[in-house]
Amino acid sequence: MRSKAPDKYRRILDSAVRVFAREGFFKAKVSQIAEDAGLAPGTVYLYFKNKEDVLISIFDVRMEEIISELRTAIIQEENARSRLECLVRMHLGGFQSDPDMAACFQVELRQSSRFMRQDAKGSLTQYLNLIGEVVEQGRRDGSFHEDLSVRLASHFIFGVLDEVVSTWVMSGMKYNLVSLVDPLVALFTRGIGHGEAQ
Amino acid sequence: MRSKAPDKYRRILDSAVRVFAREGFFKAKVSQIAEDAGLAPGTVYLYFKNKEDVLISIFDVRMEEIISELRTAIIQEENARSRLECLVRMHLGGFQSDPDMAACFQVELRQSSRFMRQDAKGSLTQYLNLIGEVVEQGRRDGSFHEDLSVRLASHFIFGVLDEVVSTWVMSGMKYNLVSLVDPLVALFTRGIGHGEAQ
Repeated sequence: MRSKAPDKYRRILDSAVRVFAREGFFKAKVSQIAEDAGLAPGTVYLYFKNKEDVLISIFDVRMEEIISELRTAIIQEENARSRLECLVRMHLGGFQSDPDMAACFQVELRQSSRFMRQDAKGSLTQYLNLIGEVVEQGRRDGSFHEDLSVRLASHFIFGVLDEVVSTWVMSGMKYNLVSLVDPLVALFTRGIGHGEAQ
Repeated sequence: MRSKAPDKYRRILDSAVRVFAREGFFKAKVSQIAEDAGLAPGTVYLYFKNKEDVLISIFDVRMEEIISELRTAIIQEENARSRLECLVRMHLGGFQSDPDMAACFQVELRQSSRFMRQDAKGSLTQYLNLIGEVVEQGRRDGSFHEDLSVRLASHFIFGVLDEVVSTWVMSGMKYNLVSLVDPLVALFTRGIGHGEAQ
């Protein structure tokens, strides 16, 4: 479907982000999304099965873009430590610069039983894999511990980023999220404990 | 209401955990909860306004118990590092020993717009405060870095625990969650990076 009229498909998704953020997923109506996009309500159903399909498509399409941008930025950094910092900065900066997307990703999407139950979270797996590549590189280049589980370390990093962004959204986005980049990178790389106490 | 017949109140909550885990929050019916508890459907409405009220009450009541048990266990540990390990072990062990509660907390609860939107997450704040006390103690007794933000470090620890339990639930609870205690405590205390590379 996207090949026929990618502009309309994309316009619907962009409008849906705004409408879901404003109304909440449950209250939002497909007709409101269509109105925001300047389209007839029936047009939305040419591209999407239902409202939940729109929500999940937002996640998949945006994640594909985010991962592609991240990958491009990361390979320009010379070591794993600076790649990690780049990733943290882009994760927090991306949400801070797009509050509607932040609300969709951190609040509305979690309310979709299809998203929460199905294991069809391919985009999330791809994101975890990208974090895993940075961890793996750090293990090889000596900046990270050799005995790390790449899988666990990826969830460790993702879990913190997700929690920090959710907390920011829930608090009404009142503070500068990007100001947390340096303290978070410090927590990731050196942990909370003193080396001598290990 | 609880004072009148705490046993029925509690029976309804325990049944609801089973029914929500089995059916999912959206599909679950109040009549199924009543049936599981051996009560008439109308009895549930003597204690709870609606299905969502039951779900949120599960969270509040269980969290109150969890925090109380944690606090009792933690004060028996002599330093902040062993208190942190105790907390991680009880968090993971508690969910592993109660898969229905794990499904309720990690999947079903997130689908409640009231839970996700309202800032009425007092129990969650209490849990974060408890983690914060451990971090604060570690800052004082020298086992953790002095320059830590207690608030950020609490979200750091909670975010990872939450992610790790969610991943376990989503994967069908197929592996031993408690086996992750030691690697997680290592990640929390020493991070992923080598000291010399700081």
